[in-house]
Amino acid sequence: MEFRKQRILSPDLKNHVGQVVTIMGWLYKKREMGGLNFLIIRDRGGLIQALVEDKQEIQKLDGLQIGTVVRVSGKVVEEIRASGGVELHDPILEVEVAVSDVPPIEVDKAIDHNPENFSTLFDNRVLNMRNVTEQGIFKIQSGVADAIREYLKSQDFTEFRSPKLLPGSTEGGAEVFKLDYFGKEATLAQSAQFYKQIMVGAFERAFEFGATYRAEPSMTTRHMTEFTTVDVEMGFIEGVEDLYKLLGKLINYVVEQVWQKYEKELTALKAEQPILTDELPQITMNNLHELYLKETGKDFTNEKDPSPEEERFISEYSAKNWGSEAVLITDFPSSDMKFYHHVSEKNPEVVDRADLIFRGVEIVTVTRREHRYERLIEQLKAIGGNPEHPGFKYYLQAFKYGMPSHGGFGLGLERLTQKIIGLGNVKEATLFPRDTNRLAP
Amino acid sequence: MEFRKQRILSPDLKNHVGQVVTIMGWLYKKREMGGLNFLIIRDRGGLIQALVEDKQEIQKLDGLQIGTVVRVSGKVVEEIRASGGVELHDPILEVEVAVSDVPPIEVDKAIDHNPENFSTLFDNRVLNMRNVTEQGIFKIQSGVADAIREYLKSQDFTEFRSPKLLPGSTEGGAEVFKLDYFGKEATLAQSAQFYKQIMVGAFERAFEFGATYRAEPSMTTRHMTEFTTVDVEMGFIEGVEDLYKLLGKLINYVVEQVWQKYEKELTALKAEQPILTDELPQITMNNLHELYLKETGKDFTNEKDPSPEEERFISEYSAKNWGSEAVLITDFPSSDMKFYHHVSEKNPEVVDRADLIFRGVEIVTVTRREHRYERLIEQLKAIGGNPEHPGFKYYLQAFKYGMPSHGGFGLGLERLTQKIIGLGNVKEATLFPRDTNRLAP
Repeated sequence: MEFRKQRILSPDLKNHVGQVVTIMGWLYKKREMGGLNFLIIRDRGGLIQALVEDKQEIQKLDGLQIGTVVRVSGKVVEEIRASGGVELHDPILEVEVAVSDVPPIEVDKAIDHNPENFSTLFDNRVLNMRNVTEQGIFKIQSGVADAIREYLKSQDFTEFRSPKLLPGSTEGGAEVFKLDYFGKEATLAQSAQFYKQIMVGAFERAFEFGATYRAEPSMTTRHMTEFTTVDVEMGFIEGVEDLYKLLGKLINYVVEQVWQKYEKELTALKAEQPILTDELPQITMNNLHELYLKETGKDFTNEKDPSPEEERFISEYSAKNWGSEAVLITDFPSSDMKFYHHVSEKNPEVVDRADLIFRGVEIVTVTRREHRYERLIEQLKAIGGNPEHPGFKYYLQAFKYGMPSHGGFGLGLERLTQKIIGLGNVKEATLFPRDTNRLAP
Repeated sequence: MEFRKQRILSPDLKNHVGQVVTIMGWLYKKREMGGLNFLIIRDRGGLIQALVEDKQEIQKLDGLQIGTVVRVSGKVVEEIRASGGVELHDPILEVEVAVSDVPPIEVDKAIDHNPENFSTLFDNRVLNMRNVTEQGIFKIQSGVADAIREYLKSQDFTEFRSPKLLPGSTEGGAEVFKLDYFGKEATLAQSAQFYKQIMVGAFERAFEFGATYRAEPSMTTRHMTEFTTVDVEMGFIEGVEDLYKLLGKLINYVVEQVWQKYEKELTALKAEQPILTDELPQITMNNLHELYLKETGKDFTNEKDPSPEEERFISEYSAKNWGSEAVLITDFPSSDMKFYHHVSEKNPEVVDRADLIFRGVEIVTVTRREHRYERLIEQLKAIGGNPEHPGFKYYLQAFKYGMPSHGGFGLGLERLTQKIIGLGNVKEATLFPRDTNRLAP
């Protein structure tokens, strides 16, 4: 269905060489070269150049600025130096919407991503989203989401949506946003953890793309208060290895698909395709500590978590030695587990958990969950949790009436997009980021 | 990728007649008929019957309840009376997870959807989602979402995600949830209206599946405080008719796809396929008032909105006379417009707006937006809005620097699912509904 039969989109122009066609879009750039006027017009397909020699035509743009919406009819001519290999000659211009104010940023120039200028970057998001390279980030993000959804559906996962308005916090803590809910207290969801596990009882395999809220007051502006998590949960697993396999296949699929469908955008953003193996390489936390000690002389052997420098180290080490920029750190100590984690059957000192380190940072935590009702109740009570709290009560119901062995992971959509493209900060992969200081645009 | 090579899913059993296979799932039903024990096992593919004659085997389930997780190996035998046309004979049972408590509801029985028992329905959601017919509602909902996404992508729309944490309310009013945001006030998004319009400036065609929050204290428990809206916006339209066409094609596509892919679930739910025309029939509000007066003697001719009884009436009238259960009511009075609406060029008494009535209720409002900066500022000031408020400032930037003619609509995902299936209340199409009284599960 095309709403304006007469309008041609920029990528289609090459099929109309020699014909007179009409394009519509925004004035993106205007240059004069030796008496010749070159206009660049942007439409949703990209950029197209028009060569205006007629003075009467170019005068129609007198006093008008970048962003002006125009309709341009002209003859399509092959021109190897123009974007798309064609340009419009002898154009007739019609101004649809005139812009008289000079925009605060130069939309056609490379957008400044220097962390020191982030406030300028995000304050001008409405306009810098009109830069075709910048747009690529969010086209790629939508492609990442599509690929995730596609792969999970091919594996029989059902997508669901859980509420983000929850009863008063179960875990206490200051990390939670609280709101007045008709005189009661409600909180905003910090994760869809319980809901996705509940969904295993219905669909076996379930996932959600959902908003996640974090109100940690100590957070620096490096962290976001709202972001998107892909929550994935799978039932009837033999063990945590099934989850590692699923995650490996998923990451490989996403990278393949995105490079297939968004090559133009990735190239403009200078993104490098990650190298990955089909099965993700693994290293236990203890072995990582030892390897790092051996290689650098720095001792983290008593730490319960990998340090940020170890995460960067193991990523590079894995890329070089194991052929994968994504690597799993396994065997986290059970002394540091969450109540719903599953203690390893082989070694009660560790839980069935791995962190996926991708290009130097952790992007996913994968765990098997405790599915045996009595054990789960014990583990909950051990942390002082009240099984009757409405935040736990319904969750526990799922276990009381039969839950199979299961587990899953949560994957930050913006974080994955950031690392795939190779951006420095997760906010650069967020359309309208929110942090302790920022609530707009 | 199959994680348990030895496990077969129920829909696949018919391909293994004569072989011994293993299934895994939940005990769904247990009956004894003349000394024969019939077990029904549920897995993510559906139900499968096992005939147990061996006493030693059936004794393994002594004292165990519905929900018990089992592994069953047996011979696949054709049996026309069983679901799927096959059943398992001479099974060997293994109990994976024993359930000893009798569940509070009978999971295999039709789930009670009587509005008087809604609190039971929603309190037991964790368990009634294990009923295969009930599950169908949410499989269909995920299919509705897939079809919407698929159609919009085929029309070059880009999916985006906008934040739900917003600065203090722009429109004031008590309908908004407020929260403490590090000492400032934040609100939860009531719509993605401004963001989707901003995205037209970048992508021309954009959409979002997003959460919508309403805190109206006067709301009855019939309304939900959190639901999912599909926000769609399209640039470079000739007029509002382009939007009506898009919506017509979209609704047709969704219904076709869902009936193609979820026939089994729709049949179990006794859903009837809506009749639709390719282009949706239209009636102006004035003509509706007159038609209703003529047909029923009831006079609504001074009303600015269609009354609920007129909505029901026109739906039936349209189905009977125009061959479509979806019908557009057009030509809403401009005296009742929102500041961002576009006044009709032909008749300044009306705005370019239509409500889509589907099976008796309004499910979509479609409007063309005012895209001319000066007009928009005038219309905003006319309602007392402050263009410098952070809730308006960035939005207006999009217009100041060039916005083409555009418009769009918001479509309630749960509402559309409800009406497609023919459920009585939107909450029945919501996994975990939220209302003034309900924040759990």
